[in-house]
Amino acid sequence: MRLSHLFAPTLREDPAEAEIPSHRLLLRAGFIRQVMAGVYTTLPLGLRTMRRIETIVREEMDAAGAQEIRMPIVLPAGPWQATGRYELYGENLFRLTDRHQRQLLLGPTQEEVVAPLVAADVPSYRDLPLNLYQIEWKYRDEFRPRFGLLRVREFLMKDAYSFDRDEDGMRESYRIMYEAYERIFARCSLEIVIVEADPGQIGGGVNHEFMARAQVGEDLFVECENGDYFADTEAARPREPEPAGEGTESLTEIDTPDTPTIESLATLLGIEPSRTLKCVMFDVAGRSAAVLVPGDREVNVNKLEKLVFPEKVRPFEDEDFAARGFVKGYVGPQGFDEAVTIFADLTVRGGRDWVTGSNRQDRHVTGANVDRDFRVDRWEDLVEFREGDPCPVDGGTLHIGRSIVLSHIYQLGTKYSEPLGARFVDEDGAEKAYRMGCYGIGISRILAAAAEQWHDDRGLAWRRALAPFQVVVIQATADHEPSVGRSERIYDGLVERGIEVLLDDRGESAGVKFADADLIGCPVQVIVGKRGVDAGTVDLKLRVTDERSTATLDGAVDAVVALLEAAP
Amino acid sequence: MRLSHLFAPTLREDPAEAEIPSHRLLLRAGFIRQVMAGVYTTLPLGLRTMRRIETIVREEMDAAGAQEIRMPIVLPAGPWQATGRYELYGENLFRLTDRHQRQLLLGPTQEEVVAPLVAADVPSYRDLPLNLYQIEWKYRDEFRPRFGLLRVREFLMKDAYSFDRDEDGMRESYRIMYEAYERIFARCSLEIVIVEADPGQIGGGVNHEFMARAQVGEDLFVECENGDYFADTEAARPREPEPAGEGTESLTEIDTPDTPTIESLATLLGIEPSRTLKCVMFDVAGRSAAVLVPGDREVNVNKLEKLVFPEKVRPFEDEDFAARGFVKGYVGPQGFDEAVTIFADLTVRGGRDWVTGSNRQDRHVTGANVDRDFRVDRWEDLVEFREGDPCPVDGGTLHIGRSIVLSHIYQLGTKYSEPLGARFVDEDGAEKAYRMGCYGIGISRILAAAAEQWHDDRGLAWRRALAPFQVVVIQATADHEPSVGRSERIYDGLVERGIEVLLDDRGESAGVKFADADLIGCPVQVIVGKRGVDAGTVDLKLRVTDERSTATLDGAVDAVVALLEAAP
Repeated sequence: MRLSHLFAPTLREDPAEAEIPSHRLLLRAGFIRQVMAGVYTTLPLGLRTMRRIETIVREEMDAAGAQEIRMPIVLPAGPWQATGRYELYGENLFRLTDRHQRQLLLGPTQEEVVAPLVAADVPSYRDLPLNLYQIEWKYRDEFRPRFGLLRVREFLMKDAYSFDRDEDGMRESYRIMYEAYERIFARCSLEIVIVEADPGQIGGGVNHEFMARAQVGEDLFVECENGDYFADTEAARPREPEPAGEGTESLTEIDTPDTPTIESLATLLGIEPSRTLKCVMFDVAGRSAAVLVPGDREVNVNKLEKLVFPEKVRPFEDEDFAARGFVKGYVGPQGFDEAVTIFADLTVRGGRDWVTGSNRQDRHVTGANVDRDFRVDRWEDLVEFREGDPCPVDGGTLHIGRSIVLSHIYQLGTKYSEPLGARFVDEDGAEKAYRMGCYGIGISRILAAAAEQWHDDRGLAWRRALAPFQVVVIQATADHEPSVGRSERIYDGLVERGIEVLLDDRGESAGVKFADADLIGCPVQVIVGKRGVDAGTVDLKLRVTDERSTATLDGAVDAVVALLEAAP
Repeated sequence: MRLSHLFAPTLREDPAEAEIPSHRLLLRAGFIRQVMAGVYTTLPLGLRTMRRIETIVREEMDAAGAQEIRMPIVLPAGPWQATGRYELYGENLFRLTDRHQRQLLLGPTQEEVVAPLVAADVPSYRDLPLNLYQIEWKYRDEFRPRFGLLRVREFLMKDAYSFDRDEDGMRESYRIMYEAYERIFARCSLEIVIVEADPGQIGGGVNHEFMARAQVGEDLFVECENGDYFADTEAARPREPEPAGEGTESLTEIDTPDTPTIESLATLLGIEPSRTLKCVMFDVAGRSAAVLVPGDREVNVNKLEKLVFPEKVRPFEDEDFAARGFVKGYVGPQGFDEAVTIFADLTVRGGRDWVTGSNRQDRHVTGANVDRDFRVDRWEDLVEFREGDPCPVDGGTLHIGRSIVLSHIYQLGTKYSEPLGARFVDEDGAEKAYRMGCYGIGISRILAAAAEQWHDDRGLAWRRALAPFQVVVIQATADHEPSVGRSERIYDGLVERGIEVLLDDRGESAGVKFADADLIGCPVQVIVGKRGVDAGTVDLKLRVTDERSTATLDGAVDAVVALLEAAP
């Protein structure tokens, strides 16, 4: 493709509205243009990269046995009302009415379409498992679209849906998709973190996010400094400490007037908060439960909720303490009867001779020890993650990283098939709801994430897998016929070798061409100018590393092919 | 692909809602499923055929120098208000408001997006001509969606837009697209009619429609029985008759009481209406004009409007006759002064000795002859086409045909660039509005039109160009291991040869498999059953012609390849 012909308008200046590198550079390099807030036109260069991503995704989905279909964008509201998401999505859902006043919406995801589709035509267990996917634009009316292709209102997604007879089948379908996703992201050459995640509005059970590391990312995750542990911030757990051993102090009640908080207690006694044992009270399905954590840590209520699901968790309110005989601010686990379930976080194993509440107003105890002075019914992971916590795998330091979530996969169970009546006839003749999984990948998000991972201050620096063109041949001396002729021959030679090449044949100065080549970011640059051609050579440059080399005029095509094969 | 695995649910019964073959068969053969009125999911077989159409279109557009981009579906209303189409489309436009109460719409076409895009980034004449296209879903809130994929609310379209400096450039861009379209439809193997057409709501000047013949089509056109003339019903013109020569009668005024219509006059005189000369009066930009046609024909006002454009045409009302001195019902062209422009349709040349009005109440003349008794200022094509008219090319009989419009291309001029302020800087430094062309092809319509042209009472009968799979290998005796094994080897052999093959490996009866093979309609069927395999043969069948042949087991792959190469 000749650059003189390509619709790839580059911008010299940084667009004022662009806050992050991918937004700024995709605009400047002529990959995208904004139509309105959060809605973009994809220009030829952007479309080429998007198509590469699509091709990788499609090939891996097909190889994993999924089948491509195409579902509508404009959808009837009915099924969404049946699953409750018509309300749940709130203002994030684009709603409209047609000329006959029927309520419609623009699909943000497609469980409500695909489940009835499969239920209508696959009534038998013999046709399972089944996995259907599509690559189509999705809609979400973001309150404040920003960050270019990262927080948008229209985005291209691959969404797949698996249908199985039972939980085992669903888990197997999930495993197959998980592994396909690992291959997809490896082929995209992206630096990815996979974490177990929160299901959010999609709901269901086990789920994972595939995140691209990015300094500007809005999505946080936890990682070990040694790279052997990754987790969602909600799910991260610190390493279980070495047991502290038996207590050395005896249980002693002390006067601690006006110390209902850990802070006031530690100050009064002149000790670290970590020496105290916090005893937090909850109502779990009508019964009392205590959660023990070291005084310097917080209980992660989500973790407790997951532990006791489907039972409901509610923190004690003032009247609960009074009504159930607990002294607020001075609760300790000693002497709790069997009616109270005592949970302890694993970190509590690392302490002994605790200071904790005495269950009497304005008094605490010292020297409280597990088993000797109070029992624990369940040892569990129940604390909030803290920056700097030790890694559960190797004890290394855990840090919070920033990323862009590219993909979220879910085991949905019957969450959608049940309310939508999406059933099949099982071997025993009984009608059963499908076990579903759903598997998304943001295609347009990958484009942005790649631009975030692959750029420098001069522009984009594509890896081969997603580059819009592999090579740019630059006519560095536009008015020097011999070098222009040579550039054409090298261009033709590369095209013959099946390589996607851009030829910068514009009447611009060498400086403008070099700047645009660095901005657009094709992996290999071939610079054909008067000085080189007079000396019988062309210059080659690897965009990512800035490594330069020369090749003879006749050896240029082979040299480019070799360079490209070795390029990242 | 194994049919046991493919999501291609076939239906035994005709769906009640399907009125035409393509709708009925695309549903029954598992190509599409309805989600709501006029909105469909495309299943794997349908998607494969749609992708083939897309590929042909994309290759020919790229070869013609057009560049692919992708524009949004959800659009801001502003530019549509600027061009007036926000109102003009009326209830056919899907409208919505976002959470910030901004007016949006779902794009039915994209002039309002692409013109500002190009104007923002291509300010120089040096970057012209430019042709940008996309393949994307379009929206139209049809009052009564029906006929499957023919009258829908969501449809896949290729839309291209050309930008030129001047009218000559625009015409050249149009010619390039016209020829690309001829290649596209030839490659699709569709039987196509190209007619000059009415611009409709898109507006502009020269435009053509590419129509697929179809008995169920809603779009009418005129064609000669000898296949050498095609036209839009509005534009069709009959052959100019042989001149009738000089008159033999003298001009004679006769009493014709109470005969203000051709019918009453012909009845009174006992002559054919075609012997009378009708003189129809119009106001053209404030002046009087007469249009002469034989008494048995009607004036086509559209043709007159096009002739005098941009002047406005209005048929005479009662008061015009009185005010301008014409006797309504008795007007004849004799003695009209130069202030009246006299148009005559070319068919008037075929008559002489006309009976026409005498310009006096209740009186006509006989023996009126052109030039001798009245003048004609302009000989033009001005009659309404009539079924059975002679062809202008060869005199053969013209008939009205039915079709499905697949494509409409337009020379738009500055119709959109002007109101949208889409300008470039020309060589002389002046800012000028682009000359645009627009070029649509209905991808999902081609799918339906192909199904209309290629089916019989047993099902679909794909031509190779658009077949979802080229070959189906049928295991006709599912419980006979040797023939099942043979079918697998033939299947593998065909796949190795790069052919897209379906293997019917289901546990169904031979009858069900044969019926489904005819229903889905792959061009070549390979039937591998016990009887044949015992005799060392397989049966081959060409779906379109129903021709059957046999091949040896070892020669089966070669025989299929040869058969396929000869298949339509």
